[in-house]
Amino acid sequence: MPLGEFELIERFFTRRTARRDVLLGVGDDAALLEVPAGRALVAATDTLVEGTHFLPGAPARSVGHNALAVNLSDLAAMGAEPAWALLSLSLPEADEAWLTEFSAGLLELADEHGVALVGGDTVRGPRVITVEVLGFVDPALALRRSGARPGDLLYVSGSPGESAAGLDALRRGASFDAPDDPLIRRHLYAEPRIALGRALGGIASAAMDVSDGLLGDLHKLCESSGVGAALELDSLPVSAALQSRCTRSELERFVLFGGDDYELLFTVAPEHAARVDAGLGVSTKVTRIGRMLERPGVQCTRAGVEVAVDGGGYDHFS
Amino acid sequence: MPLGEFELIERFFTRRTARRDVLLGVGDDAALLEVPAGRALVAATDTLVEGTHFLPGAPARSVGHNALAVNLSDLAAMGAEPAWALLSLSLPEADEAWLTEFSAGLLELADEHGVALVGGDTVRGPRVITVEVLGFVDPALALRRSGARPGDLLYVSGSPGESAAGLDALRRGASFDAPDDPLIRRHLYAEPRIALGRALGGIASAAMDVSDGLLGDLHKLCESSGVGAALELDSLPVSAALQSRCTRSELERFVLFGGDDYELLFTVAPEHAARVDAGLGVSTKVTRIGRMLERPGVQCTRAGVEVAVDGGGYDHFS
Repeated sequence: MPLGEFELIERFFTRRTARRDVLLGVGDDAALLEVPAGRALVAATDTLVEGTHFLPGAPARSVGHNALAVNLSDLAAMGAEPAWALLSLSLPEADEAWLTEFSAGLLELADEHGVALVGGDTVRGPRVITVEVLGFVDPALALRRSGARPGDLLYVSGSPGESAAGLDALRRGASFDAPDDPLIRRHLYAEPRIALGRALGGIASAAMDVSDGLLGDLHKLCESSGVGAALELDSLPVSAALQSRCTRSELERFVLFGGDDYELLFTVAPEHAARVDAGLGVSTKVTRIGRMLERPGVQCTRAGVEVAVDGGGYDHFS
Repeated sequence: MPLGEFELIERFFTRRTARRDVLLGVGDDAALLEVPAGRALVAATDTLVEGTHFLPGAPARSVGHNALAVNLSDLAAMGAEPAWALLSLSLPEADEAWLTEFSAGLLELADEHGVALVGGDTVRGPRVITVEVLGFVDPALALRRSGARPGDLLYVSGSPGESAAGLDALRRGASFDAPDDPLIRRHLYAEPRIALGRALGGIASAAMDVSDGLLGDLHKLCESSGVGAALELDSLPVSAALQSRCTRSELERFVLFGGDDYELLFTVAPEHAARVDAGLGVSTKVTRIGRMLERPGVQCTRAGVEVAVDGGGYDHFS
């Protein structure tokens, strides 16, 4: 007997939550939620399409994880505390094995960040997954893209490029079942930088998450802030895993244009730099990679000399 | 030159809003929103897939309208006031003519209900549209599915069945360009019952919106409330348009099993019935169609005698 839509939702995604701010969760026409007084609600949504955002055949656990992770990354980029998520799942069939793994991947990450799944929709169609995350932030501490000023220092978290290198390995035939490969793992299980984003509230002048490639996203941050940037290519963080596996030209391509990094790109006024360099009490490493300029555009420098860099960010429709 | 994803979002969906509770809208990593003190946040999401939820070739204006309307209907069923929406749009190509009409349909309905579009995502993929709506409600007045009690009276708004009859006409070859046909119009442009839902706060004991067919949804309301219902088939509202176009057996099929009605199904304790029958000060007609029973299940009666009714609600995966 085929599993009905409503049973399906109930079976895989309905769980008790410890959150007392969920007045009503999955199972009614909408969720009822309590936002703490004095905090702004933060809302973001991102969609994953099979073949565009994840490889056909990708482990369902990874798809579930990343469907939530890319959304949490948007909240991290606002300095927000995540609280709730809604899931819209379009699937060609109710494949129980796939759903078991997908829901495990999504719900494990939800648990890690204290997020309650409070609603959603399940429909028959192509494999398209949309998650909406909701959280909150003190509006005075929210991180926007628009606050960078000339003279601010530019930072990035973690190791951009690793995810793209992992994707590249998979495209060249590496197995999805390589849990010990740090690059493939990074591609399949993005790590939203929630703790770092929250620590940056009141410290960073601007922030965004890097999803479409570091260089393209830096252009967007500059445009939003009405400033430019000098990016020091020699300062870019390069992990040991990346270094051991890539040629120098591959490396730069992955780091600057790779996409799917879900690292935070942020700017800091010089007086706050010492606190950032001291680590802000979070485990995610951050690296200073340049500074903001009055002149619009991004100039890349190597050993202090401006150099041309080819390529561009990822744009689904161009 | 193809239109880039980011330009596309900006061009079709970025507008100034008069809502002062939008601290930050489209264009950053997430939206920043202000929920009024003392109100609960209400969140819902629904997905439309081409071929499943709308006919291939359906007017883009209708698709845009309904993508928001079905979500607003969920808020209506909670008695909530809508405030904000996010849109995830997966499209095979950036067809400007389609996008112009789609965004017009969505934004016109948004304006009608004072809803600001505050974020979203645009990706290349099959035509799948997910909208999330956010609103608020006094938590003491929120309409839940679970509050119906034996002896409560059962009501439905508007004319269920019209949308299904309109879809049937389109499937038999009627033209999408028949704006004067009330049944086709109902199918292409659902009317969320926001004003009625808000008027029912503190009056209805339970409510839900009818999206999968009146009879199937009544079963769900009964299960949520732990009660049963007697549905008087003779009392079902039948519009003149439906009556003039359908045989008697078609009529009952459309009204009971049609789906896509987006009417409100609600229950009212007898002491509030007079206020409901007097219209609650809203323009949407409501009709008393039965009463709630202690015994579980739905019994259908005609001229006071219980009759068997075949068929079932709509379930995407069965």
